[in-house]
Amino acid sequence: MLDKAYIQAKEGLLRILSQLDTTTIPIETTSLEDAYERVLAENIYSPEDLPGFRRSTVDGYAVVAEDTFGASETSPRYLTIKGDIVMGVPTDITIGRGECVRVPTGGMLPEGSDAVLMFEHAQVVSEDMIEVCRALAVNENVVQADEDIKRGELVLTKGMKLRPQDVGALAGIGITRIQVFKRPVVSIISTGDEIVPPDSPLKPGQVRDINSYSLDGLIRQAGGVTLKLGIFKDDYGTLKGAFHRAMESSDLILLSGGTSAGIKDMTARIIDEAGRPGVLFHGVSVKPGKPLIGGIVGNKPAFGLPGHPAAIFVSFETFVRPVIERLSGLTKERFKAQTLKAKISKAVASQAGREDHIRVSLSRLQDGTLMAERIFGKSGLITTLVRADGVVIIPSEKLGLDAGEEVHVKTF
Amino acid sequence: MLDKAYIQAKEGLLRILSQLDTTTIPIETTSLEDAYERVLAENIYSPEDLPGFRRSTVDGYAVVAEDTFGASETSPRYLTIKGDIVMGVPTDITIGRGECVRVPTGGMLPEGSDAVLMFEHAQVVSEDMIEVCRALAVNENVVQADEDIKRGELVLTKGMKLRPQDVGALAGIGITRIQVFKRPVVSIISTGDEIVPPDSPLKPGQVRDINSYSLDGLIRQAGGVTLKLGIFKDDYGTLKGAFHRAMESSDLILLSGGTSAGIKDMTARIIDEAGRPGVLFHGVSVKPGKPLIGGIVGNKPAFGLPGHPAAIFVSFETFVRPVIERLSGLTKERFKAQTLKAKISKAVASQAGREDHIRVSLSRLQDGTLMAERIFGKSGLITTLVRADGVVIIPSEKLGLDAGEEVHVKTF
Repeated sequence: MLDKAYIQAKEGLLRILSQLDTTTIPIETTSLEDAYERVLAENIYSPEDLPGFRRSTVDGYAVVAEDTFGASETSPRYLTIKGDIVMGVPTDITIGRGECVRVPTGGMLPEGSDAVLMFEHAQVVSEDMIEVCRALAVNENVVQADEDIKRGELVLTKGMKLRPQDVGALAGIGITRIQVFKRPVVSIISTGDEIVPPDSPLKPGQVRDINSYSLDGLIRQAGGVTLKLGIFKDDYGTLKGAFHRAMESSDLILLSGGTSAGIKDMTARIIDEAGRPGVLFHGVSVKPGKPLIGGIVGNKPAFGLPGHPAAIFVSFETFVRPVIERLSGLTKERFKAQTLKAKISKAVASQAGREDHIRVSLSRLQDGTLMAERIFGKSGLITTLVRADGVVIIPSEKLGLDAGEEVHVKTF
Repeated sequence: MLDKAYIQAKEGLLRILSQLDTTTIPIETTSLEDAYERVLAENIYSPEDLPGFRRSTVDGYAVVAEDTFGASETSPRYLTIKGDIVMGVPTDITIGRGECVRVPTGGMLPEGSDAVLMFEHAQVVSEDMIEVCRALAVNENVVQADEDIKRGELVLTKGMKLRPQDVGALAGIGITRIQVFKRPVVSIISTGDEIVPPDSPLKPGQVRDINSYSLDGLIRQAGGVTLKLGIFKDDYGTLKGAFHRAMESSDLILLSGGTSAGIKDMTARIIDEAGRPGVLFHGVSVKPGKPLIGGIVGNKPAFGLPGHPAAIFVSFETFVRPVIERLSGLTKERFKAQTLKAKISKAVASQAGREDHIRVSLSRLQDGTLMAERIFGKSGLITTLVRADGVVIIPSEKLGLDAGEEVHVKTF
């Protein structure tokens, strides 16, 4: 089912995502120490109340709130100090009307008390007596035993990526081992007869492998594990062999390089012959990145990436990252700041029907305005990305940008 | 030099940063495989030109541009095919006027040629002759030998954090080992007589260690290496011992916990006695996070963090993160999207002279407007952070927010 008509970016991504079965992503157990940035494979219900006992939020006296009603500096109430709460130690003190107990911040409230008077609102009259200078509401300066988390409550949801505070919450309820989705393994097959490893001496006509090094960082950023299979000759048998090895050892396959039309066709053929559904699109209306090939073989997505560094980047952000996230089990998307508003310094032409991704560098004017300047240069030049602070996407229905027009820069 | 007057956040941070000597951050060598997200400790000048030879950007015929001047479909020019360029192999073909050579995308241009005619603009007339249907400018469809990077050019700058494309550029110029700044080791001393590890059974009055697990993720996010020293009793000798161990094994020391005023004073005393300049501030006009202590001991910053999870977060973002970044050798700041514009759903009161950091959850209305809803709850509750999508900072000079007012949500 080879399809060489160029399609829109959204449509291409949808073809991949809609045919991907993500109900069978492997699961593994991880400790709390390794839980940060992992994607939860289970709903987490709390086995207990947090904090688990009534705590004071201030340094002060645990009291019966009713004893303080009407109290003020001019009309104080008097309470007898019955003792001290020691941090971390259960107390057997019980207080009644007219009594109080010293309690530190975080300390356990004694039986009978229902509010805490801050030290600064009390006057010590004698060794065992205070003047209450302020009225308290019931539960004032108190955290209830289940105020943070209730036993049985859903705390964290399957499909979310754990942030620092989420790991903290797990620690708080005593859950130290959790089920997470395995990180997807993303293999890179670098192709190109002219490509040599970065530490090789160069012969005329050869260039070093840039793309698999850029891709490695992008894959890790997206939550995947990189598997570099090596640099392969642009030869049908060789690439077919590499592709089958990638199928066995990874969850997503990236064929990187192969800039000529002939090589692209060979890549499409290898994906298509490897299994069903095969190639889902060949060529997208995105610049740079037009020659992208996308497909699925036996529930493993495969991309034939364009050869140029800038095109690789655009293909990755537009297609590969969302697929890696899907393969990571991520289903709870968070609101995340990704773009900065800026003004484009000069007009930019763009063809209708094609999504243009232009690289820009940013600078701030004295009045605070952020200016985005387009970085010129062929998409084969890695320095166009090194110099860039981000990308501006001109949607396919738009005919370019006017000088001074407001743009949203996706920073990287 | 204990100073208990509450100071503004900016002023507090400045006191730390201005007294920190970052000219002596240790340097280590790393391979390209581990270079991603490291901070460069050297300027990188290219040892060679990239790509190093003149390359074609298309599949076509390398020609002498002048031979094509005036060519069109109705008035074609004729050229003799002198051979083929093979990818990755140096060519000894030289062409002259009236001659051309087949070249694939990325292939090396032969001596004598100065432009490449795309296949689609040529008609093959015979085995060794083409019709040129289009005029070419000199250098059209050609990447010059030094067009991406010139030999001797400054490619990457000391003090920048390496992104995927920066690592790609290093690979491209054959630099496989680089000098980077060592990641700062950040030690966490958890204090509190009531604190137990997350896998401990709980006795009444005890709570599990939440903060060091949240802090670990935050530290890693900021580029540091976490060193958890353990949970210590709120005892002067014990904490002093832990602090001295932290001084020996880390670059930045966080004392976490200790919510009561007495413990805070003890923490300040330990920092102040450990060496000069000692405590630089004790208490900041930030809510939550007021009881923060900041200091430096022998060029190692130390913070006495507030005990409440939300306060820890605010202290970390406002003070600790910038200090970790400084200790990482980071001096080249990038423009980075960090906030989302939203409307606050209800009015929020805020005290003048105090910077308020309120936690919010986000939702999108049908018309696309992003609404920020304040999350209520005491700063001691970890779930106020788990439910939050980000934080809105109300500056100290502002008296709160009106319902519907536009806010910038720092997402996390």
